[in-house]
Amino acid sequence: MRVDLNSDVGESFGAYTLGQDQILLPHITSANVACGFHAGDPSVMRVTVALARQHGVAVGAHPGFPDLVGFGRRDLNATPGEIEDFVVYQVGALSAVAGAQGAQLQHVKPHGALFNMAVRDRELADAIARATAAVDRSLILFGLPGSELISAGRRAGLRTAAEVFADRAYEPDGTLVSRRKPGAVIHDPDAVVARVVRMAIERSVIAVDGSTVAFDLDTICVHGDTPGAAVLAARIREALERSGVDVKAVGAA
Amino acid sequence: MRVDLNSDVGESFGAYTLGQDQILLPHITSANVACGFHAGDPSVMRVTVALARQHGVAVGAHPGFPDLVGFGRRDLNATPGEIEDFVVYQVGALSAVAGAQGAQLQHVKPHGALFNMAVRDRELADAIARATAAVDRSLILFGLPGSELISAGRRAGLRTAAEVFADRAYEPDGTLVSRRKPGAVIHDPDAVVARVVRMAIERSVIAVDGSTVAFDLDTICVHGDTPGAAVLAARIREALERSGVDVKAVGAA
Amino acid sequence: MRVDLNSDVGESFGAYTLGQDQILLPHITSANVACGFHAGDPSVMRVTVALARQHGVAVGAHPGFPDLVGFGRRDLNATPGEIEDFVVYQVGALSAVAGAQGAQLQHVKPHGALFNMAVRDRELADAIARATAAVDRSLILFGLPGSELISAGRRAGLRTAAEVFADRAYEPDGTLVSRRKPGAVIHDPDAVVARVVRMAIERSVIAVDGSTVAFDLDTICVHGDTPGAAVLAARIREALERSGVDVKAVGAA
Amino acid sequence: MRVDLNSDVGESFGAYTLGQDQILLPHITSANVACGFHAGDPSVMRVTVALARQHGVAVGAHPGFPDLVGFGRRDLNATPGEIEDFVVYQVGALSAVAGAQGAQLQHVKPHGALFNMAVRDRELADAIARATAAVDRSLILFGLPGSELISAGRRAGLRTAAEVFADRAYEPDGTLVSRRKPGAVIHDPDAVVARVVRMAIERSVIAVDGSTVAFDLDTICVHGDTPGAAVLAARIREALERSGVDVKAVGAA
Repeated sequence: MRVDLNSDVGESFGAYTLGQDQILLPHITSANVACGFHAGDPSVMRVTVALARQHGVAVGAHPGFPDLVGFGRRDLNATPGEIEDFVVYQVGALSAVAGAQGAQLQHVKPHGALFNMAVRDRELADAIARATAAVDRSLILFGLPGSELISAGRRAGLRTAAEVFADRAYEPDGTLVSRRKPGAVIHDPDAVVARVVRMAIERSVIAVDGSTVAFDLDTICVHGDTPGAAVLAARIREALERSGVDVKAVGAA
Repeated sequence: MRVDLNSDVGESFGAYTLGQDQILLPHITSANVACGFHAGDPSVMRVTVALARQHGVAVGAHPGFPDLVGFGRRDLNATPGEIEDFVVYQVGALSAVAGAQGAQLQHVKPHGALFNMAVRDRELADAIARATAAVDRSLILFGLPGSELISAGRRAGLRTAAEVFADRAYEPDGTLVSRRKPGAVIHDPDAVVARVVRMAIERSVIAVDGSTVAFDLDTICVHGDTPGAAVLAARIREALERSGVDVKAVGAA
Repeated sequence: MRVDLNSDVGESFGAYTLGQDQILLPHITSANVACGFHAGDPSVMRVTVALARQHGVAVGAHPGFPDLVGFGRRDLNATPGEIEDFVVYQVGALSAVAGAQGAQLQHVKPHGALFNMAVRDRELADAIARATAAVDRSLILFGLPGSELISAGRRAGLRTAAEVFADRAYEPDGTLVSRRKPGAVIHDPDAVVARVVRMAIERSVIAVDGSTVAFDLDTICVHGDTPGAAVLAARIREALERSGVDVKAVGAA
Repeated sequence: MRVDLNSDVGESFGAYTLGQDQILLPHITSANVACGFHAGDPSVMRVTVALARQHGVAVGAHPGFPDLVGFGRRDLNATPGEIEDFVVYQVGALSAVAGAQGAQLQHVKPHGALFNMAVRDRELADAIARATAAVDRSLILFGLPGSELISAGRRAGLRTAAEVFADRAYEPDGTLVSRRKPGAVIHDPDAVVARVVRMAIERSVIAVDGSTVAFDLDTICVHGDTPGAAVLAARIREALERSGVDVKAVGAA
């Protein structure tokens, strides 16, 4: 039994601070670092990579739409070609920032609307996968289990990692409950911790209708932008390790 | 006798076209490709690298200040640390774009105000050189002969290339005549061609006062953004080759 | 019989020139000036307003999505509230630029994807209309005849202007033939001129299936970004005036 | 005895929150609202204006350099013409946001590097003053007592307001102690409160060498971006009112 804990970090920008990277990073194993399009800037990227490395956390790229004011959360009707180009650009930029510190990127996880659109849009998913493979064939592509993004990663010859969310409710078909529905996000820390341990051990989750949903699971996303996120991440990690789960980066030996 | 001909290319952006890359690239040997901060975008970068490779032109990064509306031509009082960070970012992004096409970057030439400030500002020059070396120690750093940038490149263990300008007048001390003075730019194509041949063969230029200025010279910059630039580049190359000068990329064997 | 001729202008940005404003403006009566989000910058806006006034052309705002690299042509899933906010911002900015020259804005015409989405999306159309009315209740809102935007303008108490396109083919139901279909754009200048005269006199157009489509028509859009645009605009204006049509700005007495 | 208390607000951007506008605004009388170039966005501007009005605080524009990642704090070598253009643009945009809520702007205070450069650079100061007057001749221009900006405002026929800083140390000549020197910022809240009361009543301050510096004083700047800023603002206001100083917006009757 083994699992990776990932979180979105490096989302500060210039004078603006977002998240709690300093206290969150000690508890996770894979860091999704924003690349300057929806969040992050070259200096924040450098500091974030250094902090991740200091805590032995694997570094990955978190490319997003070029929409800083919208934080990459708004659908943008870019062509697959444009998306392929700006994923190469962002992953390449972070790769150089990491390389300047002697580090290599482990993975790529698209951000926000780009991630959500890649669940179902095959052309867009292929664009992301092609871009990732074009930068480095050894990168691991993160995606929802069963998503077009995971399929696209395989088509592109990439290793993929199935990602579940610690604090999100699931439909019986394994998709996320829409944020527009009540109960989409689980706020009770005890419930979140219990779910995560079950996910890691049983490779399944109890859906909103009470049924059990089994899925692939390589990495669990812990949100870093909510109050108490770092404390919750610490509790999750401790509970997993106490339950005998080996918590380590997905790309680690 | 050997010389490189370089030009700034890839300066289009989105719906905006700038320069004459398609007809200029056949005549030069090194392309300085804008990296998305002062000009260029991820798609323009991909197209430009492909075009350069099609013509056997070596590809280099042309990083600039994050000032799109000012085209990177305005001094920006960023710290050396900030500059180091955004040069790593830009060179890394282009490096990935090139890598996706199986190409490697040959060189780095800062753009506009960043280039001009690096002539005399040692701290800034060191920041650029450190950033370049951090991305890839084999990159060649372009700079004015005698500039702080060339010194900084050497301190950082980089190979450097001394660059002169085909159509600019020189002061007796080897610096460029300020654009604010009359005669700073030489507009007569015949004069430009004659100067370039002399530069390449004699490694010197006739300064505005009639004196001869000797300097190191590895690469000659041909401007691409003026009407007739491509025609002038073709004439320069032909004249050089007819004079027995070997015109090839600075990093070529 | 009276009609307005409008065109998108002021789409240059920094070092980038787009369009042929100088030679186009003498032939039109209403100028849609980009406001810095999808195109244009504060200096381009000033120059464009001055040029329009010099030719007695009425000035209007052409607000777009905050997507410079996409030229405002890509759908962006912003909320109606966000859209209302950034239309107020853009119209306000141009209004000040005009006011600094003693001019008042005549109209507002959304750009690109914002315009297209407002044809059918009522909430978005209401957001644009509310924003326009909030800046100045005397502004005239341009939109496709029968569009949600025209309805929204009326709901907001604004005067509206029905706009048709000189060089676009129409479906029998009065909508534009999609650009993805062959024949969507009419390239033959003679055909365009003949259509425009018919539009202005008959208030109708021959649709792609040969049927006649009648519609309201206050203003005809002449594209400014194609080669020969200025020449075509001159021919259109001359043909209209020769046919006895009074060509003047929609807001003129 | 009367004084205005101003503060920089509306500096949040998209998903990023900065400052403590909600708890600060009840204690000040003039709000300097960021206009989207160095900070702020159209939605933040709307919310900030609404909040200011709710607390009866006068609204002013806080235009800055187009340098979001640098928060407008870095010198940018733009021409006076460019600066005039982007000040008109920013003040116009905020003016429309305010107008949409039935409010009028009271003042203009340049931000960061633009403010600092306008202390000594007459051409730049004239550009800012001309832009302000071009938007609305009744706007009050804020500047350091004795600065070029104040002189430029007068030359442009504007009412001006001399501004001092609550928590900054002064040189004997009335200029601010550079932030690079120790003691430039006064951190002891009691000392700040005492200084402000003295400033308002005596129209003077004790400089770093113990000498008394007299100056014009219309408005006192209270920083909003430090921890405890709102509490300090409340204490300052209370102390002023207890001392019989009439605390009201500079433009109020």
